[in-house]
Amino acid sequence: MLQYVADPDSGLDRVFHALADGSRRWMIERLCAGPATVSDLAEPLPMSLSAVVQHIKVLEAADLVRTQKTGRVRTCELRAEALRPVDRWIADRQRMWADAFDRLGELLTDEARTTSQEDMT
Amino acid sequence: MLQYVADPDSGLDRVFHALADGSRRWMIERLCAGPATVSDLAEPLPMSLSAVVQHIKVLEAADLVRTQKTGRVRTCELRAEALRPVDRWIADRQRMWADAFDRLGELLTDEARTTSQEDMT
Repeated sequence: MLQYVADPDSGLDRVFHALADGSRRWMIERLCAGPATVSDLAEPLPMSLSAVVQHIKVLEAADLVRTQKTGRVRTCELRAEALRPVDRWIADRQRMWADAFDRLGELLTDEARTTSQEDMT
Repeated sequence: MLQYVADPDSGLDRVFHALADGSRRWMIERLCAGPATVSDLAEPLPMSLSAVVQHIKVLEAADLVRTQKTGRVRTCELRAEALRPVDRWIADRQRMWADAFDRLGELLTDEARTTSQEDMT
């Protein structure tokens, strides 16, 4: 039986939480094209600058974005490598799921074989 | 410039939110091995049955889990296909990021070539 091991400081929690919002996902998409200032990121978004700053803080907490202040301008940069553990988690689950399906397939084949052998006796 | 298009009813929001909790991720992991009753899922978790039921509701809302009641027993089953849009979103971003890096590499190569040609004149 699969054991449950609590992980109270999971980076995965923070990354999944950061990605659970359309505005934050859009910011990541925008930053894939290259660094942007907070004003650049805020410009097309239908929200206040302070709301944008809050969203950026969530992305920073998840280590998805790094910001740097030069004079009065804060620039945001994507840390795309922070997506890797999330990517890995999903890929691992999809593999576990596919393996379970394969095992089920083998079981059903074995069962069909046994039934057809019994029919022949 | 990348446009922002709000998507108020995004399934992605719900799936990422559902995955942003270690207990819920553990439930998905457990259900990869096959269906389980609510009691099976609750057994190793350090929380009340009603907290477990709340987590299952979040997984159901994200369409990651389907439940069925037979008599007094509720069984949970994984809908692994609900992970696919999340998987696709991450893969697309990683590709956008890699493309941006390739473009940057080309720009730097072009620049180096121009500089070295200038040096030769």
